[in-house]
Amino acid sequence: MTPIYFDNAATTPIRDEVIESMAKVMKHSYGNASSTHSFGRSSKVLIEGVRNSIASYLNVSASEIVFTSGGTEADNLALRSAARDLGVRRFITSKIEHHAILHTLDQLQLEYNLEVDFVNLTGDGQIDYEHLELLLQGDKKTLVSLMHINNEIGNILDISRVALLCKSNKALFHSDTVQSVGHYNLNLKDISIDFLAASAHKFHGPKGVGFAFIRKNSGLKPLIFGGEQERGIRAGTESVHNIVGLGESFKLAYDNLEVESAYVRHLKLYFMDRLKGAIPKVEFNGCSGDLDKSTYTSTNVRFPLSADKGAMFMFQLDLKGIACSKGSACQSGSSQNSHVLNEILSLDQLQKPSLRFSFSIYNTKDEVDYVIDTLKALIET
Amino acid sequence: MTPIYFDNAATTPIRDEVIESMAKVMKHSYGNASSTHSFGRSSKVLIEGVRNSIASYLNVSASEIVFTSGGTEADNLALRSAARDLGVRRFITSKIEHHAILHTLDQLQLEYNLEVDFVNLTGDGQIDYEHLELLLQGDKKTLVSLMHINNEIGNILDISRVALLCKSNKALFHSDTVQSVGHYNLNLKDISIDFLAASAHKFHGPKGVGFAFIRKNSGLKPLIFGGEQERGIRAGTESVHNIVGLGESFKLAYDNLEVESAYVRHLKLYFMDRLKGAIPKVEFNGCSGDLDKSTYTSTNVRFPLSADKGAMFMFQLDLKGIACSKGSACQSGSSQNSHVLNEILSLDQLQKPSLRFSFSIYNTKDEVDYVIDTLKALIET
Repeated sequence: MTPIYFDNAATTPIRDEVIESMAKVMKHSYGNASSTHSFGRSSKVLIEGVRNSIASYLNVSASEIVFTSGGTEADNLALRSAARDLGVRRFITSKIEHHAILHTLDQLQLEYNLEVDFVNLTGDGQIDYEHLELLLQGDKKTLVSLMHINNEIGNILDISRVALLCKSNKALFHSDTVQSVGHYNLNLKDISIDFLAASAHKFHGPKGVGFAFIRKNSGLKPLIFGGEQERGIRAGTESVHNIVGLGESFKLAYDNLEVESAYVRHLKLYFMDRLKGAIPKVEFNGCSGDLDKSTYTSTNVRFPLSADKGAMFMFQLDLKGIACSKGSACQSGSSQNSHVLNEILSLDQLQKPSLRFSFSIYNTKDEVDYVIDTLKALIET
Repeated sequence: MTPIYFDNAATTPIRDEVIESMAKVMKHSYGNASSTHSFGRSSKVLIEGVRNSIASYLNVSASEIVFTSGGTEADNLALRSAARDLGVRRFITSKIEHHAILHTLDQLQLEYNLEVDFVNLTGDGQIDYEHLELLLQGDKKTLVSLMHINNEIGNILDISRVALLCKSNKALFHSDTVQSVGHYNLNLKDISIDFLAASAHKFHGPKGVGFAFIRKNSGLKPLIFGGEQERGIRAGTESVHNIVGLGESFKLAYDNLEVESAYVRHLKLYFMDRLKGAIPKVEFNGCSGDLDKSTYTSTNVRFPLSADKGAMFMFQLDLKGIACSKGSACQSGSSQNSHVLNEILSLDQLQKPSLRFSFSIYNTKDEVDYVIDTLKALIET
């Protein structure tokens, strides 16, 4: 059987149309977008076209979109400059953020005189909004960084509520929206957010490109200094083909959002239904069993297995040609447990193996059937 | 006539083989290189293959090669961490470095208690090595950053000599080798350099990818924090297709170096000879008229024209389908003169228009003929 890819939260296959656009750009539009001659201007036109189209979709100005090498760089750009240039002396975040936030804040604490506060979480990994409101009452200049959709358990943040809370308490608001851009509508005219980070490879675009939204007049300064690219906020020759790939995948994601999200949502429901039928004692971590409170693209399953049997579980699935994940790919180099699950599960629950299954338009019900049968067989042996 | 691209120092056309490899990777190897399942491992194998091949060519360890989004990021990584983590309190550089160095040092001076000293230049833009030796005699912890090949005037640094000077004076040595990697042989076993920066799009590879060489046990820490990618020194999902494109273009550049560099060198000579014949009063900035002291890939020409006629010179060439440059593309967003020429030319010389013509394997003698004829006609009207 062809291997099955249920790890779309780690990265997604690139759409054929996107690959074709990128190959075309690489072949015919090789000018440096900063060059003033015709070759340069052609590249510039491509880049500004993507910027306009993303800005228009998000309902912001083109000048508020800054292309980066991905979500992690965009996160670093906002957080570092907030500490260095904007006078932020306190960060409020949660312990289940991506490491692009948590490790960056660890570093910034070494460099600057900063307080980092963590908002309380409910048992299913949701933000305690009352606690956030309480934390916001200090008078140090504060930035709140909370991700829109958690990359491991899929919990959806009430981003508008957090934005309002921040606004009324004069705090800046940054959100890692890497798991939501391309999958959920975002109208930044209605959400008073200051900074967000997105990454093309999470919505069938290329790896190594993303963007930061930086609200006008924010005062943010570069992470990478040098040339005057990106209106002076991000130096380095623009990756024209990657930016075009980002634009194409962004456009296709939103042009087809209704149909495609319905398809993937249906697949997740089908997976959960079949799973509960086949292995009645499975549980869902965080809110990932609830389609209203978690993303339609993934679910995080806790299996009724002992620790010793669980240790090899993902490896056995891999041998059967099934790709899923124990958590964030960015962490899988290390042998430690997921810091997200560590935070929200009890010691007993942590003994059982948990796996994230994440879906895309390229998955099918047949694949779900095969995966469920395989899981059932592995658990029963 | 098809437009003529004589701006290969700004960026180069991508080789067809490179585009094909990248498209293949995008189509078939979409796994996240940090994922432990088969999809992830396939991507990891591709990346490590490139790392090994670059390391082996440069005669260093694979762990000393760190992939970045390009040369500018690699420069920023080394310089920032040197100031922050390595205790460097003095930088020695020159006023004709790329802005990726100069603007980064400007910023670092705002953030850290740093001294920045500039080595003297000779009239043709060469480093005054005796002055460098003198500067190195201080006792503050020092890093020297001098580019191997100047991107505007093409002057070649005696990189081995600088490396030895740094070593014997216990200074760190960083070099922006963006214009030399892929065009000149570099054996880092013989050159005691600590850090270098390279960029694929300068040698017929993709834009938005490059690498830093970071000498083992240097203590360098990340610029971008987050996941454990690149052995913890550069967070963010790896751009697998771009890294493969970097690897393929690097390999092709060095496999064909002898033949291709001879071809381009011959083209530059032909261009200079014809130019001197057609416009006897032209002059060459820096060492760019001397093939021993400047790169075979470019030349920087000063035309015998008055300031008022010179102002529109590049624009007129562009209208005739000829792409060349007033200097670094990274600067051309701004209307200021080249900081490199400002540094080495007299006020009188600066009144005359200077243009950089840079060549690649895709250029021909016919193109040179057309460009020379066009230049002659423009100057005579």
